[in-house]
Amino acid sequence: MKLGIVGYGNLGKGVELAVKQNSDMELVAIFTRRNPKDLKIKSDAKVVSVSEIENWKDKIDVLILCGGSATDLPEQTPKYAKMFNVVDSFDTHARIPEHFANVDKAANEAGKIGIISIGWDPGLFSLNRMYANAILTNGKDYTFWGKGVSQGHSDAVRRIDGVLDARQYTIPVEASLKAVKNCENPNLTTRHVVAADGADKARIEKEIKEMPNYFADYDTTVHFITAEEMKKNHSGLPHGGCVIRTGKTGYGNNIHNHVIEYNIKLDSNPEFTTCVLVAFARAAYKMSKEGLSGAKTIFDVPPAYLSSKSNEELRKLFL
Amino acid sequence: MKLGIVGYGNLGKGVELAVKQNSDMELVAIFTRRNPKDLKIKSDAKVVSVSEIENWKDKIDVLILCGGSATDLPEQTPKYAKMFNVVDSFDTHARIPEHFANVDKAANEAGKIGIISIGWDPGLFSLNRMYANAILTNGKDYTFWGKGVSQGHSDAVRRIDGVLDARQYTIPVEASLKAVKNCENPNLTTRHVVAADGADKARIEKEIKEMPNYFADYDTTVHFITAEEMKKNHSGLPHGGCVIRTGKTGYGNNIHNHVIEYNIKLDSNPEFTTCVLVAFARAAYKMSKEGLSGAKTIFDVPPAYLSSKSNEELRKLFL
Repeated sequence: MKLGIVGYGNLGKGVELAVKQNSDMELVAIFTRRNPKDLKIKSDAKVVSVSEIENWKDKIDVLILCGGSATDLPEQTPKYAKMFNVVDSFDTHARIPEHFANVDKAANEAGKIGIISIGWDPGLFSLNRMYANAILTNGKDYTFWGKGVSQGHSDAVRRIDGVLDARQYTIPVEASLKAVKNCENPNLTTRHVVAADGADKARIEKEIKEMPNYFADYDTTVHFITAEEMKKNHSGLPHGGCVIRTGKTGYGNNIHNHVIEYNIKLDSNPEFTTCVLVAFARAAYKMSKEGLSGAKTIFDVPPAYLSSKSNEELRKLFL
Repeated sequence: MKLGIVGYGNLGKGVELAVKQNSDMELVAIFTRRNPKDLKIKSDAKVVSVSEIENWKDKIDVLILCGGSATDLPEQTPKYAKMFNVVDSFDTHARIPEHFANVDKAANEAGKIGIISIGWDPGLFSLNRMYANAILTNGKDYTFWGKGVSQGHSDAVRRIDGVLDARQYTIPVEASLKAVKNCENPNLTTRHVVAADGADKARIEKEIKEMPNYFADYDTTVHFITAEEMKKNHSGLPHGGCVIRTGKTGYGNNIHNHVIEYNIKLDSNPEFTTCVLVAFARAAYKMSKEGLSGAKTIFDVPPAYLSSKSNEELRKLFL
């Protein structure tokens, strides 16, 4: 199975590493908008200008799109679904219907598969919300994010005048998490902790805490640290969180509570996300080989399609 | 969607309750080997002798088989897959290849769907083992069962001479669980606690602790309690457990650890299991309507097929 990637940021680099852990896959090309000579890569893939991508139409089974959801993917995924089976990690929830429709049209016309919104949220968390809702139909959903670095929130803080660098950590409130697991249906709060390196601390802290959409409505703590401490203790991109559904079954006075929890703890958010992308690239390849086409989400893909193992092996090893 | 069930024990009763929580389903018939007049049921379904089941071939969309794995299902699932789409909870791991082949043959010949081994283990735990293995290819798997009542182990204890009643609880060792979540790859032990009501305590305790396959190789504690205490504190069938996969990604010295955990806590094992069975009955119905046939497992069913919601709704609500 021959893979290509578009974009060589955190996700692109993660895909490159993930492919090495899957013996049925080979990364054949990395497409970039930069000068190919400027990329130092960690594999034997060819580095190619994205302007030449059309020449690779018959040389790549699945193309993994590693750009951002704001501007890259809305344009790239439909565009490349006309030439390749594609997988993306589109995560702008409000625009998913539009994105799905655009990819579906392009992929159907070309007879290709386009799997969108793959990763862990959207992605594995979505999947677990869906399974748990289909099983416990009378219940409530909770999603907790963290402890982890939100790259979008960290970027927003870095844009404040006087901030040299910043990390934003989202931290679930332990008491809320415990109350949910005990089926107490609490109201939830999210806590943000920002480590920033910069001058004029009072003004910066005020600007952070009052930033609309990002921090204004939340419990936010700001710590000022040195550049050395930032590098030493905050250079990774850990993340995690959990999806919980609580539900009730029974009859009359004989009501029973149930809790389903899906929990992940990641040392590297981009490396884990790309492990998910790569497994769904395999699924795109299998679906395409079966003659299927169009846009798909994680809800449409039979679980077995993610695995390199045969159905017999899956039943033997995991059932 | 019209459902039927075969067998009216804990599982059959659970299906009856689960159907009430799904507005797109109706339980039309309960098939029993007993005298239909002797069954007191909690729904408007017809109670029918299993000898008349063939007359219901065109009146039922999916038949849920609620018998045991030891003798009922190996015979029933292939037999009824010749007449109905069927779902079962077959859980004798070593015999799954044979059971799958028998159901596959019968269902294919009749153009029906037979989904086998549905529940939580095998079932949702299998699914999570499979997804986590496809994503974190370099890792280790752990399954913890409990705290919960094992009905098979409890039965085994009740068979000892002098035991009036018994409950066996499987309890995960907290220290092992914690070590797994910290990626320490520990050796695991399982702890059994048996509450028994009976005479000749020393002999009974010895017989329990030395019972091969069940308790001999494990850390087992026996408590003797009164019939009143048994009834008051041990009449439910709670269970639960978790599936954990730990995995590594990265390159050179830059290795990252990840943990995926799926955890369930159930007040009623049979009521939860039947919620899963009912969702997969919906999937069997959808797959059959698409013209598919043959034996399927939880790995073969696209997640969206479990839900009563449209694909658009699923994307909007859960993605």
